[in-house]
Amino acid sequence: METGGRQKQDLSLDMGVVRTLLVNFLRDECLNAGFRNGVLGLSGGVDSAVVAYLAVEALGKENVRAVIMPYRSSSPQSRADAELVIARLGMVSEVVDITPMVDAYLAGMNGADNVRQGNVMARQRMIVLYDISSRDRALVLGTSNKTELMLGYGTLFGDMACALNPLGDLYKTQVWQLAESLGVPESIVQKKPSADLWEGQTDEGEMGLTYARVDQLLFAMIDERRSDEDLIQIGFEEEFVRRVKRMVMVSQFKRRPPVIAKVSNRTINVDFRYPRDWGI
Amino acid sequence: METGGRQKQDLSLDMGVVRTLLVNFLRDECLNAGFRNGVLGLSGGVDSAVVAYLAVEALGKENVRAVIMPYRSSSPQSRADAELVIARLGMVSEVVDITPMVDAYLAGMNGADNVRQGNVMARQRMIVLYDISSRDRALVLGTSNKTELMLGYGTLFGDMACALNPLGDLYKTQVWQLAESLGVPESIVQKKPSADLWEGQTDEGEMGLTYARVDQLLFAMIDERRSDEDLIQIGFEEEFVRRVKRMVMVSQFKRRPPVIAKVSNRTINVDFRYPRDWGI
Repeated sequence: METGGRQKQDLSLDMGVVRTLLVNFLRDECLNAGFRNGVLGLSGGVDSAVVAYLAVEALGKENVRAVIMPYRSSSPQSRADAELVIARLGMVSEVVDITPMVDAYLAGMNGADNVRQGNVMARQRMIVLYDISSRDRALVLGTSNKTELMLGYGTLFGDMACALNPLGDLYKTQVWQLAESLGVPESIVQKKPSADLWEGQTDEGEMGLTYARVDQLLFAMIDERRSDEDLIQIGFEEEFVRRVKRMVMVSQFKRRPPVIAKVSNRTINVDFRYPRDWGI
Repeated sequence: METGGRQKQDLSLDMGVVRTLLVNFLRDECLNAGFRNGVLGLSGGVDSAVVAYLAVEALGKENVRAVIMPYRSSSPQSRADAELVIARLGMVSEVVDITPMVDAYLAGMNGADNVRQGNVMARQRMIVLYDISSRDRALVLGTSNKTELMLGYGTLFGDMACALNPLGDLYKTQVWQLAESLGVPESIVQKKPSADLWEGQTDEGEMGLTYARVDQLLFAMIDERRSDEDLIQIGFEEEFVRRVKRMVMVSQFKRRPPVIAKVSNRTINVDFRYPRDWGI
């Protein structure tokens, strides 16, 4: 629980500046890589809606392709919200139903729980986006925010897979602020965040925390580099600090490339690590 | 063409030392990450066979799961070679036919060329391995060698996806040497490398170069850090040097994590970049 005496972290940003920065990021990084087009999965949620708005501003609506990828159990409301974004922005879009691909695998794998099923869905969507990326010469735009990335609340090689991610340094509550300032439809900004993998799922319910609270803690822990003692002293509960810190640490593997055994004097990602756009 | 007067690069290694190093790498990295088990895809080729030999030595045969993942068009010889490795090592194994998953997607996507189809197959195999990884609490062991990684001859988020890669710092010709010293069956060491995505495909045919030749060049270029002038002076053709260098540079994006737009003072993989096993 948030206590009255707690010091509040200020996560507000000048969203006009952020918008310009992210639009320029998308435009420059795409053009530098030799691409004029982007592609992204539109889930109906606020993160992908914000990326769509930024990408259309950066690249032009005719150069951003939105892909809606429902599974059998996906909520019709999610699709309606995705279509609302497409209509508002006048984007090129297509629908790829992932049900046949997902079910073709799960049929042979009895008893996969919700988490495993959700990972299969997220990765099937990656396959669709990367194939369209190749077909249309379009860079895959990521939609993971900093809260998700820090907590490891995402599927490695699934929704975390992308070429460029404009949101990866904004906490969820900051994405909401940005969404408001971009004019993303209220229904999308207001609804409870959900990966929409099963009925009634919400991010906050699944993780057992609220974005409002965890963003405050992450900002103080990561961005302000405060010690555990300090975090507790300014009002965060010790158990909450310990739990969130653990989530950040054990998910580090999702944020780094695979580990290669070092044999030679120049090993990939150890002593051979040019920037990603080195060759362009 | 290799000319008589050319200086030869020495890529030979003490394979007894390399074997010990890689076995210890697999054992230490697995245990440090809290895992006792590994899982890998066995294609019937030399790379995955070598990883299977190393992993069984590191973790014990009961702790390494081999997965054979044929597609409709895969060569029966590939499967027979994979089964030979399994029998020799006495490994736990299973077969997952990826045909239904691949075809479920391709049925809706007319006209995908061989490369796109191959990427879909490689990524469907990733989905299988990562799902089994979750089911069995087993780390996914990668099998990409340094030649493939440097030339970008692999599928991002497909066969390049793994937790640990014991071969990523060995050129293909070094993998062959290691295979010989480990006692990998001769039929596997001797056959022409192929991704087995379509009939008659060979790596060397597809890339238009031989491993013998390109490994010499890569070693001189990357490991010895020789300049283009120097490379040409010691006998490599200018056009070959230029072409291979270009392949290395334009594939850099496959070796690095996604680019996140910097907004805060601590951005993932820019100023927030602990080692992969930080949280363990």
